[in-house]
Amino acid sequence: MTPPAGSHIDLERWSCPLPLSDYPAIVMGHGGGGTLSADLVDHLFRPAFANAALDTLSDSAVLARPGGRVAVSTDSFVVKPHLFPGGSIGSLAVNGTVNDLAMSGAIPRYLTAGFILEEGFSVATLAAIVGDMAAAARAAGVIVVTGDTKVVERGHGDGIYINTAGLGDVPPGVQIAPQRAAPRDVILVSGPVGDHGMAIMSVREGLEFDSAIESDCAPLNGLVQSMLAVAPDLHVLRDPTRGGLASALNEIARQAGVGMVIEEDAVPVRPAVRSACELLGLDPFFVANEGKLVAIVPPSQADACLAAMRAHPLGTASARIGLVTDRHPAMVVARTGLGANRVVTMQIGEQLPRIC
Amino acid sequence: MTPPAGSHIDLERWSCPLPLSDYPAIVMGHGGGGTLSADLVDHLFRPAFANAALDTLSDSAVLARPGGRVAVSTDSFVVKPHLFPGGSIGSLAVNGTVNDLAMSGAIPRYLTAGFILEEGFSVATLAAIVGDMAAAARAAGVIVVTGDTKVVERGHGDGIYINTAGLGDVPPGVQIAPQRAAPRDVILVSGPVGDHGMAIMSVREGLEFDSAIESDCAPLNGLVQSMLAVAPDLHVLRDPTRGGLASALNEIARQAGVGMVIEEDAVPVRPAVRSACELLGLDPFFVANEGKLVAIVPPSQADACLAAMRAHPLGTASARIGLVTDRHPAMVVARTGLGANRVVTMQIGEQLPRIC
Repeated sequence: MTPPAGSHIDLERWSCPLPLSDYPAIVMGHGGGGTLSADLVDHLFRPAFANAALDTLSDSAVLARPGGRVAVSTDSFVVKPHLFPGGSIGSLAVNGTVNDLAMSGAIPRYLTAGFILEEGFSVATLAAIVGDMAAAARAAGVIVVTGDTKVVERGHGDGIYINTAGLGDVPPGVQIAPQRAAPRDVILVSGPVGDHGMAIMSVREGLEFDSAIESDCAPLNGLVQSMLAVAPDLHVLRDPTRGGLASALNEIARQAGVGMVIEEDAVPVRPAVRSACELLGLDPFFVANEGKLVAIVPPSQADACLAAMRAHPLGTASARIGLVTDRHPAMVVARTGLGANRVVTMQIGEQLPRIC
Repeated sequence: MTPPAGSHIDLERWSCPLPLSDYPAIVMGHGGGGTLSADLVDHLFRPAFANAALDTLSDSAVLARPGGRVAVSTDSFVVKPHLFPGGSIGSLAVNGTVNDLAMSGAIPRYLTAGFILEEGFSVATLAAIVGDMAAAARAAGVIVVTGDTKVVERGHGDGIYINTAGLGDVPPGVQIAPQRAAPRDVILVSGPVGDHGMAIMSVREGLEFDSAIESDCAPLNGLVQSMLAVAPDLHVLRDPTRGGLASALNEIARQAGVGMVIEEDAVPVRPAVRSACELLGLDPFFVANEGKLVAIVPPSQADACLAAMRAHPLGTASARIGLVTDRHPAMVVARTGLGANRVVTMQIGEQLPRIC
């Protein structure tokens, strides 16, 4: 889908291929966070469940309630291996949902936890994973208030799958939604991309590097609140998990009907992650993150927001990576160091299965 | 664990066997809703996540919020087959969580939906299941506001697993909690027990009966509100799903530190369900329900509550089945038609795996 790089492309007239809706059976890509995932959402889930909250297509639903707005979110976690450098399926299950809530500007409060265990799974490993969940919950300032456990026969699971759902409070005045991305807005990222995905891949592939790659798995709610303190008009937040930075930007561009221009060299990528990506033929723009966010901020508040991000322990390597534009709507373009442009597409299927 | 029937047993001195906590690996019974499930909760989940909301051990957590109390609940659904007489994993996934909320007296409002799909699963079947979810949500008056889809490789799932989490409003004044069961309270059940479990089993075992057994899968929130209208001091509600009526009563007895005496012949069981249970060597008291509730009501409001239940379409066959007692705390005793007593234990493991 990526045309040859070069500024001769007429970006205004470029059109995306049709969604591949003609799948009679589920393929791995339907869970990859790319266009196949979007296809399921657009053509199956949204028509069935049609309602205004679902239609916002954010990481969480924001609901008007008698005591103020609440954000609600859910995620299932199927990552393997269960334990990896920098985290586990347990810390991921907490931080993933905490971060989805935080991407609405919400202060996460409560989580639910649903476990699907495979017969034969080690109770000691389960205890370690649950311990990681409890520690992550404490770190994020949330409590797990209710749960459920199901067991399936050997060969019908993969040790453990965890679902978490979360509830958070959206402070008055906060209006974060993908549709708010507007031309001339500044695009910020809170640090180097691709750490989580490459940490998982390096374990799976048995790769060794000079410096170990650790998952960035972390709760972003504190970072978001410190950003809102100085940039209350923050337009969009998204955590680039499955599908990575490229998919997150493409989703926002599509939902807001805007274009984006990214300075490729401005996007931070750790050298070890870049090397691992080159070795495996992956593009770090598409690799999952679990402790990073993309922020789209009106130009007047961008500098203050970036400064607040850099002052936070989870945002020290934050960077300004590009601008929203009214040219080429729904298209993300990366400008290379050599001055060429390339279209950054949304991936179709799954680059790295079972990454979260 | 059931001693020979007979009124000669000294029930006051009967003690339950110790929980079987010495399992190094997960067995099917850890998901069965019996003592092994309780063991995981008591010895693993509760110590890790320790908080007051979790400690109520209800079907849902009730949280004090600025705009009033809310109930929060979650359940994963792994039932097979996916489609069965009277419902599907889709209708079950909605009604199961709606009912958990209703058991706190809450008016269910919002659901989340998390799907774990197995590579190769039919997209048409997925669409049918999602259609069932949407229809069940409409019938229960809830909306699905956010969701998530993950895909796992062939052989690591079973077509589809669904998690739902729900949020509901608890009306002012309602105080429903297992700990409120008090001596002399009346125990009511909203209709014949065992339908759901035997509907699933009859499909799995290929059994044919004179009258087909259908799952009772239904949303109980309307029934509960009509009960609260005439019995506002309703003490306890529970939907006897996994583990059936016997496990539900034992859990409440244990949590409230009270005993219960059930008139065995007063518990409604459909003839077809009774026949199927006899054929398969099952006790209908232990078989799962998905559209029934047990209510524990102070004596002064019991008649009015029973009348309201019988006036509701989902409670026409409601019955008074027994009393709470301060004798034999934490023990449920059934009085047979012949005047003998038997201790109704909580099952240890799983009678019917993958029933919900």
